[in-house]
Amino acid sequence: MTTPTLPENGEHLLARATAILAKGSQIEIRNLVRSLYPAEAAFVLEALEPEPRASLWRLIPPGVMGEVLIELNVEVATALLAITDRKDLMAATEQMGADGMVDLLHVLPEPLLSQVMESIGVHNRNRFEQALSYREHTAGGLMSQDVLTIRADVTLDVVSRYLRLRGRVPAGTDSLIVVDRKDSFQGVLAISQLLTHDPHTKVSELMDTKSPGISYKTPSRDVAALFERRKLLSVPVLADDGKVLGRITIDDILDVIREEADHSLMSMAGLTEEHDMFAPVVASAKRRALWLGVNLLTAFLAAWVIDLFEDTIQQIVVLAVLMPIVASMGGIAGSQTLTLVVRGLALGQISGGNARGLLFKEISVGLLNGLIWAVVVAAVAGVWFHNPHIGILLGAAMLINLVCAAFSGVAIPVLLQKIGVDPALAGGVLLTTVTDVVGFMTFLGLATLFLL
Amino acid sequence: MTTPTLPENGEHLLARATAILAKGSQIEIRNLVRSLYPAEAAFVLEALEPEPRASLWRLIPPGVMGEVLIELNVEVATALLAITDRKDLMAATEQMGADGMVDLLHVLPEPLLSQVMESIGVHNRNRFEQALSYREHTAGGLMSQDVLTIRADVTLDVVSRYLRLRGRVPAGTDSLIVVDRKDSFQGVLAISQLLTHDPHTKVSELMDTKSPGISYKTPSRDVAALFERRKLLSVPVLADDGKVLGRITIDDILDVIREEADHSLMSMAGLTEEHDMFAPVVASAKRRALWLGVNLLTAFLAAWVIDLFEDTIQQIVVLAVLMPIVASMGGIAGSQTLTLVVRGLALGQISGGNARGLLFKEISVGLLNGLIWAVVVAAVAGVWFHNPHIGILLGAAMLINLVCAAFSGVAIPVLLQKIGVDPALAGGVLLTTVTDVVGFMTFLGLATLFLL
Repeated sequence: MTTPTLPENGEHLLARATAILAKGSQIEIRNLVRSLYPAEAAFVLEALEPEPRASLWRLIPPGVMGEVLIELNVEVATALLAITDRKDLMAATEQMGADGMVDLLHVLPEPLLSQVMESIGVHNRNRFEQALSYREHTAGGLMSQDVLTIRADVTLDVVSRYLRLRGRVPAGTDSLIVVDRKDSFQGVLAISQLLTHDPHTKVSELMDTKSPGISYKTPSRDVAALFERRKLLSVPVLADDGKVLGRITIDDILDVIREEADHSLMSMAGLTEEHDMFAPVVASAKRRALWLGVNLLTAFLAAWVIDLFEDTIQQIVVLAVLMPIVASMGGIAGSQTLTLVVRGLALGQISGGNARGLLFKEISVGLLNGLIWAVVVAAVAGVWFHNPHIGILLGAAMLINLVCAAFSGVAIPVLLQKIGVDPALAGGVLLTTVTDVVGFMTFLGLATLFLL
Repeated sequence: MTTPTLPENGEHLLARATAILAKGSQIEIRNLVRSLYPAEAAFVLEALEPEPRASLWRLIPPGVMGEVLIELNVEVATALLAITDRKDLMAATEQMGADGMVDLLHVLPEPLLSQVMESIGVHNRNRFEQALSYREHTAGGLMSQDVLTIRADVTLDVVSRYLRLRGRVPAGTDSLIVVDRKDSFQGVLAISQLLTHDPHTKVSELMDTKSPGISYKTPSRDVAALFERRKLLSVPVLADDGKVLGRITIDDILDVIREEADHSLMSMAGLTEEHDMFAPVVASAKRRALWLGVNLLTAFLAAWVIDLFEDTIQQIVVLAVLMPIVASMGGIAGSQTLTLVVRGLALGQISGGNARGLLFKEISVGLLNGLIWAVVVAAVAGVWFHNPHIGILLGAAMLINLVCAAFSGVAIPVLLQKIGVDPALAGGVLLTTVTDVVGFMTFLGLATLFLL
């Protein structure tokens, strides 16, 4: 008895691909390319440095190029399109359905786009133009128009014969959508019902009329949350008048959740999830420069606060030694609260109702931790510099800063969300500004008041 | 024509639940509870403060308690179990399948656990003990044992009749698993094939023998990645000898991806995704205290470095004003690189093969941005303090720190991963230590060398 061959994990796949590309045997590379699923090819391409990436891409047959492009992040896709033969690309796009082509749209260069539009048939063009009219990051943009609908007044036997006649069902079909004469959504018939019931049963007896349909305008984020909260496998997408426009399946939701979660993580460092890990140095530097510039303003603001107390520091140099501790601890505590709140906001679990309670709780936590660590730093600093007064001031300043940090960690992201600014992106900079300014100000200010 | 009623999003659901709980009409609360899906109830419970949370929980019927508990994060579930009547809990667990009960295991208190074990039937107990033997965060822990298998040598018609006789198919069945006489995995028959082909066709003619099975030992993370890369809807889980043990469906993967992505985000702030947003203040403070303590060590280390240069600062106080800029910019730039690498490692897109290329690229980016911003800070500081020398030193120190930050941002997480430490958790602290120490050391060191 042989053990079954199991698929390798990402690291192994990547290591194997890298090794094969490095050796450069054309046959082996071709075999590798042939064995890869489109999303696997995309995974490997994203993880390769520009040179091996280009050589791998050149060996991908035009027939699968389109599907690989859809899976790639925007920047990598754009870079690869630039080195792709125009004819290959036309061949690639022609093989794709309307939904796939829309996904490709935002990476296709303009002249090619018009050319593609002309070459596709009328039926496809209508679908394509329809698909184009939906906004990205909404149910309309996510859905597939490839939908199977049935009527409520037929028997399961009729449905089965219809399916056999049709010869195919759309990928990921877990249920058939039931509509009336006007194509309006009535409910869904689970495939499992179709399979397990007597063929003479009517659809109307088995269909689920409580299963939700969603508006094409629903934001992707809300669609994903609905799938998670209701354990859905697919959901029909409806027009304002209740007509069925398309269908979203759970595999589309996987991507939404991955992107959404990545978005919070990357935004908090001023990055985006759509960038190429191996983007050219100048392009990467340019993008990050802005973030560094914004943070530099914060740093200068903090420096300006310190400068206000130049005379105090001149007289007690030890203050300069200890002041970063106050700012740093505030920043750490604040970013814990901030991260908690950013995640809560992304999940929709923070609203007006509980924000106040959360604020109160976080401030209490800040106060308690402030007290504990204030005692510790006061003792350490007091012993270190043989000066209990400095220790006490340090502890007091830290306590104040930790409470401010907790307050800002809740208030800043909630306010940003309210005014429509991404709290994950802007929250960290604003928070650090507060904790730096408050940290330096209280410590040096208290020292000026009490030690001079 | 009325527009269809569409499901509300998380914020609205939460706001409505909060309002109903606040008003306190028992009928309305009961209606709310009845309308909630288990995962919806969990979503609302997690977002509520302890008091309304408890009152909502008390109204949830024992029949759905188990399913709600599974959906809750560990801490919230544990807290609610503590206030749950023992009899209700027994009723709740009895209604769950073996797989569900395993999911509950890590939150059930020990005495109750034994009681539950005794009360369940032999068949369920065997399944339950089997399920217990798999490790969490592996395919075995993720899978459901509720599987439908068929033989390759029968016709579709036989399969259809078998399904009707059985009367139910497991949730999320997109394909039937084909096994031989010894229960060994042969391939899968897509439901779509079953639906669209002539009933007299044999399973062997239609089954997909290339579709993968995975070992029960496969880590959850790799299982999720496989679903994403191969666009799977379900995958059979196999024993070492190729026997089918169970099946993982894409809806389980949704949770894995959500948790995994949340894990990176939360770990980078020293938090975990399994904690209650409204945990008691003392418990929260205790957990965060450790993180603050670790960071305090870093801060004291930085202070000690500054202390080495007390004499220098005494003579040129402006240094104290400007030194946080160097440390802060290093921290920001470094955490950009760190985040990029932590995400790459989590996705499996960074291996020995490309780490060197990434290191080189990040250092180049750091160098370029260092040069740009060094000129800016040099100019600003030079003008501000009417001292070009200090400006030049500041720029030089920042340049050095940004390059160090880029190097550490790649090297630290890659090394941590290699020695089996979570790079998301430990990476940030180590990185800040480097950027603080290097930042203060170079700026104050250069000043001591050239300005005194």
